[in-house]
Parts: sequence; C-alpha cells; structure tokens
Amino acid sequence: MATAPSVSYSMTVRLEVPASGTAVSQLTTAVESHGGSVTGLDVTASGHEKLRIDVTIAATSTAHADEIVAQLRTIEGVVLGKVSDRTFLMHLGGKIEMASKHPIRNRDDLSMIYTPGVARVCMAIAENPEDARRLTIKRNTVAVVTDGSAVLGLGNIGPMAAMPVMEGKAALFKRFADIDAWPICLDTQDTDEIVAIVKAIAPGFAGINLEDISAPRCFEIEARLREALDIPVFHDDQHGTAIVVLAALTNALRVVNKGIGDVRVVMSGAGAAGTAILKLLLAAGVKHAVVADIHGVVHAGREDLVAAPADSPLRWIADNTNPEGVTGTLKQAVVGADVFIGVSAPNLLGAEDVAAMADDAIVFALANPDPEVDPAAARQTAAVVATGRSDFPNQINNVLVFPGVFRGLLDAQSRTVNTEMMLAAATALAGVVSEDELNPNYIIPSVFNDKVAGAVAGAVRNAAKAAAGGQAPTGR
Amino acid sequence: MATAPSVSYSMTVRLEVPASGTAVSQLTTAVESHGGSVTGLDVTASGHEKLRIDVTIAATSTAHADEIVAQLRTIEGVVLGKVSDRTFLMHLGGKIEMASKHPIRNRDDLSMIYTPGVARVCMAIAENPEDARRLTIKRNTVAVVTDGSAVLGLGNIGPMAAMPVMEGKAALFKRFADIDAWPICLDTQDTDEIVAIVKAIAPGFAGINLEDISAPRCFEIEARLREALDIPVFHDDQHGTAIVVLAALTNALRVVNKGIGDVRVVMSGAGAAGTAILKLLLAAGVKHAVVADIHGVVHAGREDLVAAPADSPLRWIADNTNPEGVTGTLKQAVVGADVFIGVSAPNLLGAEDVAAMADDAIVFALANPDPEVDPAAARQTAAVVATGRSDFPNQINNVLVFPGVFRGLLDAQSRTVNTEMMLAAATALAGVVSEDELNPNYIIPSVFNDKVAGAVAGAVRNAAKAAAGGQAPTGR
Repeated sequence: MATAPSVSYSMTVRLEVPASGTAVSQLTTAVESHGGSVTGLDVTASGHEKLRIDVTIAATSTAHADEIVAQLRTIEGVVLGKVSDRTFLMHLGGKIEMASKHPIRNRDDLSMIYTPGVARVCMAIAENPEDARRLTIKRNTVAVVTDGSAVLGLGNIGPMAAMPVMEGKAALFKRFADIDAWPICLDTQDTDEIVAIVKAIAPGFAGINLEDISAPRCFEIEARLREALDIPVFHDDQHGTAIVVLAALTNALRVVNKGIGDVRVVMSGAGAAGTAILKLLLAAGVKHAVVADIHGVVHAGREDLVAAPADSPLRWIADNTNPEGVTGTLKQAVVGADVFIGVSAPNLLGAEDVAAMADDAIVFALANPDPEVDPAAARQTAAVVATGRSDFPNQINNVLVFPGVFRGLLDAQSRTVNTEMMLAAATALAGVVSEDELNPNYIIPSVFNDKVAGAVAGAVRNAAKAAAGGQAPTGR
Repeated sequence: MATAPSVSYSMTVRLEVPASGTAVSQLTTAVESHGGSVTGLDVTASGHEKLRIDVTIAATSTAHADEIVAQLRTIEGVVLGKVSDRTFLMHLGGKIEMASKHPIRNRDDLSMIYTPGVARVCMAIAENPEDARRLTIKRNTVAVVTDGSAVLGLGNIGPMAAMPVMEGKAALFKRFADIDAWPICLDTQDTDEIVAIVKAIAPGFAGINLEDISAPRCFEIEARLREALDIPVFHDDQHGTAIVVLAALTNALRVVNKGIGDVRVVMSGAGAAGTAILKLLLAAGVKHAVVADIHGVVHAGREDLVAAPADSPLRWIADNTNPEGVTGTLKQAVVGADVFIGVSAPNLLGAEDVAAMADDAIVFALANPDPEVDPAAARQTAAVVATGRSDFPNQINNVLVFPGVFRGLLDAQSRTVNTEMMLAAATALAGVVSEDELNPNYIIPSVFNDKVAGAVAGAVRNAAKAAAGGQAPTGR
C-alpha cells in the first residue's frame, strides 16, 4: 500500500540559494518530483546575491528524507545548511515539565508553601487521610506506568526507550482532560516486583494507567493491583482499545442496521487488546464470537488447549466463545461473518476473504502500521472499514477514550474501574456521532472533537458514582 | 520564648461592619490587643449602611487564631463571615502540576508528539540509551522520594500526609533551580523494598532526592542506592543540612578569626543530620569533635558502645571523634568548646552553658521549632548564633543548598555525588557572603539571594566534571 508523506517524517532544511534565477522553483520541484511534500517555505535572510531559505519537507520514511536531501545537494548554486528533524526537535529535552501553581516570591510565601506552615497541612492529612484528595495533588494525578516490554509495535525496548511514549501520554492527559500525569518507567519486568512497586507508589496518585506491558503479564499485574489498591487501575492497551472498538462497532451496526446480539463476530488476535475487546463485546451483548490466533480458531478441542491450565487466558476464550464449535483457519472462519476485528498482524486477509463475509460486512483491521487487510481492498465489498491509521477514515484511537475515562474516575473519586463504567464510556463515545453525521466513513469522532472527553468523562463519572452507591463525593 | 505572629498561622476573615462609626478601628484594635497582627485589610463591598471587609490576620498558633476570631465576634455591629486559613488555601488541590511544553493543536502535532512519530525517538534511545538525556525529560528530572517515616519534626506520619512537604520541595526545586521534580511517596518502610523500588523507577530520573526517611534506615537505603544506580542519590536531610552548616561555620569562623583545624566542636544529636554534619566537618578539616546523644558524650568506652556492632553508626562516631576521650554529659562537654552544633532537642542548654564555652563561641542551635538553647540567651555571650528558624538572623535552611546541588549534578550529567562535591557546595555557599557583608548576624545569605543557587550549582558542576575525569558532557 502506497504511503503518503507524513509530518512524522518531516524535516526543516536550511539552504542558501542565489537571489535571482530559478533556484527556488528548482528546489520545490526537486522535492516534489522525488515524492516529498513541501509543507513550509520561509525566507529567513535576504541579501543582494543570496537568500537563506528554511524549507519544511514531509517524507515517507527516514531513508526517503535522506534521498530528498541528497537531491537538493545536486541543484546548481544551492548550499545546504542544517537539516533538522522536526519530530526529534519536538522531543528535545522532553515534552513535559513540572510547574508550580503558586509563585514563591518571599519568606511569607515560603512559610506557607513549605516550612513551617506546611506542617499543619500534613497533620490535617495524618488525622484524616481523605483530606489528601483536597490538600494535595493526589486528586488530579495519574501515574503512567510501564516496564517497556511492549512499546507501541516496537516490542520489548525497555523502560528508558519507552519514556517518549509515556511523556506523550502525559501530555495527552493534560491536553484532553486537564489531568496531571507523570511517567513511571520501571527497570524490572518481574510481575511480583511491578505489583509491589505500583502498590507502594500509589499514595500520591488517584489513578494508575498501565501502559505497554506485554501479555500475559499485564493481565495478572492489573488484576492484582485492582485487588490491592483503593484507586482505579486501567491498562489502556486493553481497555482503552476495547472501549473505542465497542463505540465504533455500535455506530457501524447503526450504519448497517444490524443488532449486536445477532451478528457473527470473528476476531484475529488473542493478546492484551484482543482479550479485552472480546470481554467488553460479550458484556455489551455479542452472542456469536469466534477468536483466531496464530494457530487458527480457538476452540475447546484444540490440541494446545486440551492441556492448558484452567486459568489460562486462551482457555477462558475457548470456554466463553465459539458456541457453534467452529474449527480451522481464520480465513475459513470469516466466511459469512458480519464483523471482522483484527488486533494481530499485517496482511492476513485479502479482498476475496472480505468478499466472502456476509452482506454489509464490518471490517476493523487495527494492526499498526500495516492492517490485517488493505483497507482499500476491504472497502470494495465491506460496508464499513476502520483501521488504527490516521490516513484513513474511522481511526480507532485510544486518545478518544483514556483522557475522558480517567477524568470521570477522578471526578467521582472512584476507587475502582469496572465493566459498567467501560460500557458507559463506549456508549457515550458512540453517542458523540449524531444521526445526521453518521455514515460509513464517520462512525467515530475525531480526537480533536471537543465533545469527546466531556461526554466520556460524564458517563464514567455517573457510572462510578452509581457503583459507589450513589454517594456524591465532596468536590472534584 | 515569645513567638511573633506568623504568616503560616494566617487567616483571612470576612466581616460586615456598619459603614459609619468606629467598627474598623475597633476591629484592628481587637486583633492587636490580643497579640495578632493585621497584615491586610480590603473593603470588598461598600453600601450606605454596611461595609464588607476582608481582614488578613497573622497569629502565633491555631488556638491563638481561634481566640482572635472569638474576640471579633464580640464587637458590636460586626457580623462575622467566612474564615479562611491562608496556608490551607495555598495547598488546596495541591501545589504543583504537570505542564506540556508543546501545544497539541492538530493531527500533525499529535503525530510528532505521539504515534507514529514518537516511535523513531524511542528507537533512537533503544539504540543509544545515553540519548534519553537528550530526548526525554530525564536530564532535568529529580524524584523526591519519601516513606513518610520522619516528616519535618512531625515523625512517622506516613506517605500520604508527607505529600504536602514533597510537593513543596518540588516547587522549591523549580523556583530556585528550574528543575522538574516529582513526589514519590512510598507506602512501605521496609529498607529492601524501598531500595528495590527506587532502583526500578530510576530510568525516568536524573537524580534521586531522598527526603524525611528516618535513621538508621536512611543510611543503608542511601548507601545501597548509590552503589546500585548510575544517577546521584542525595538524602537532603543529611547532606543538605551538612552543607549549609559547613558553609555557615566557615563564615562564623571568619567572623571570630579561628581556624577550622583548631576549634573544639561539640555536637548534640547523632541522627541522620548529626552524623552527616559530623562527617562533612571532619572532611573539611575539623580535628577536635565531640558528639553527645541522649545518653551523653559518645566515646569508645561507653557501655552501650562496647557491645555495638562494628558497622553501627554510633560506633563509627566513637571511632572517629573524641580523640581526647571526653566522657560525661553534654553540659560538661561544652565547657571551653569553641563551637556548639545542635541537631537534637529543645532547651538542652542554658545561658550559663554558653557562657562556659570558650571566648568568641559559635552556637548553632538547629532543633526546630524550639532550639537547643534560646538564641537570645546564647547571644549574651556567644559571638555568633544561628538557628533553623526564620524569625532570627542566620537561618540554617536546606533551601540554600539542594536546588543548586542538583542543578550542578544534572548539568554535569553526574552519575554520583561525593564528599568533594559537597565541600565545593559549602565553599561556594559561604563565598556568596562577601567580606563587606560578613558580620555576626549575617554568616549565611538569604534563600532569596539570587546568587546562591548559581554559585552552588557552578561549584558542584565543576567538582562533578572533575570526578568524571574532566569529560565535558554534551549539552545540559
């Protein structure tokens, strides 16, 4: 599939060109004829003989960017200066910082913010621990915790290399839900240690966002932390994804006018995201689900499952899906299916497989960056197609969910997060798309739709208050 | 000792008073005649018959504040409204927040800050971990870690109640050294667990500030972390205090014209701060030091020490101080001493004890809030007196040290912090007070002296670079 030049492979090149002549048009022509895209051009200094120009160019990859730069070098009269990678520039020195809410101008400020005044505030919390949500940052603060074991699609790159993602996540928490999140990147991948550490750091936070922790450890870590802590613990790769998928499916079913209890759903992928999506779909009313992994369709009689321990995730899938006892390959399973949801690997299906699905088929091919099936091919026969990519319609993006979910949990001072809250979040997200707006290419709103976070937060807050017995917490 | 009204016991009282008559002067008279201090008075609404007035009043304690409010109630025609505690108002919702360095306005921003662009930044760090100091917040970020076991003078109040102090510390890091610090308050007081946790969270930080962890656990925790980590670990209660004390002593000795190798120093207190002060003084050239604890002067023959293990902190003190074999009580030890340094308990010495010291005695009575000896009494005979309090001259305050120390360590990308760096910090801090300024009531600069942090940072940075073999790190 051809890729368009992307701002994430974007560079700014400083050049000196002769003031007269055709050097500038030669420049832009060179960029465009080699597949790049000029997204900005500033003359930053001008003289009688020479111009200094900063050209910003989007490419499709790092190699492509290098190739374009090499071309620019060959233009007569052009002197190449500094080449700056715009993405790296944005990350230089990190993307977030700590800010103080009050100025500290003089001794009076100091004596209230720090000693001796702070002692009275400490004692108030020691006497009434609930006051920590009133008198400290706890009430609005989330830890973004990773062990770097499954970072994006990059794999086990470790805690230090995971930092840019966790900082970005923190920035998104602030941008979309005014939450103060801080990255905690752990130099251990031991389940017991991670559980002990997160338990220990919990006092200063009102929520834990687990991030990019590999399966199956992520299941146990989340379950044990939920059991141990009195603040909500939410593994975004699982539940954030599940909520967006359910919201998108809800709207896709509105488009094709099918009922969630009637459709045959085939899933590809039984990892963290796949398992969470499956569970949420079942909770939302899906009755006919079949899951395939790398070994084919999961069913109770499959060789590797007969001997599997009763608490293994795959065993749970076998016991709770596939009531018709389907066996065989993924390609066999999708024949006649109403819905395909892939969170697995690139290019598992072809156009002919989508054509073999039921009429008005729904295809969510979410493997990133290369989907399970080329979305252009899928669209030939499917009624609705969604991917995880930003360059196709219907992007399934967790950013639609996690800020609002945590905003709602924090506002409700919730001690837990449960399936009802997630279902409420999905319903609210789906509801942001009105009947007038709904169409096969718009089943899910943009992440920059400013109704999204508020709608999700409100629904989660109400569900959390209901779960807490309807007690209204005191203040946010 | 009489205490002056303090802003840390300050409240704003809203009142309605008759527009005519003497109600306002009755108000201020009532406050002042009961020992309070009016620090502000705003008419916030005015009518023909009534004024609404916000009066800000400093008191000496919470009980005193209540007493003043009760007095205001008794004034004819005055209607009392809301009483707001100014210190608590400053802490409401916490004192710090996370801020994003870049706006996220559109999909282009998102694709550079987060996926897909962020993946290239992650891979760069995975390939070259040193790049984390260039491309993430690590280079400017410090964890403020406590277990809440020895918070200020309040004792073991736990991690949640310690939060206001740690937030305040983070705010001070920003204010005085532009460092991004985040509080990590641990729900465990187990030494092994704390060591494991801090090791695990280290990837995202360039330094660890241990805070308010009780002795003797703090010694072992710090030593093991320094051994394990490649970033500096600094227990501020120990070393921050030690550095300020050494700086103040350096200048006090300039005032009285005595040499550090000649003076007889008597210390009271062998806890975290006392031990660190002692070690730094010995490293700075003190030859005649005697330490007393609650059982009297520490000497090798003392009953509880004969049997103490070789690695016990008290044993170390016995082996490294008191060459003359002084025995007996603190009061006996200070007779003829040149310097007294107390980091222990209130009111251990009287004016007569200070009078029994050598001529031109130096007294640092640092117990908070009540010093080892009334500073006014000590000043009758001592040449230089310092305390930990802000309402006397010569306040020994860690805020003078920790921001600059960490600024220097981070700027040098130091992997350690050692005695040479601390000595350099003390010398630099002492040097901020010029010969012209130096006098018995000004041996240490104000925390708001804007030369302090830079001077300390520069000295530490140079010492850290020297320790790293003079290699200049690339950039800050």
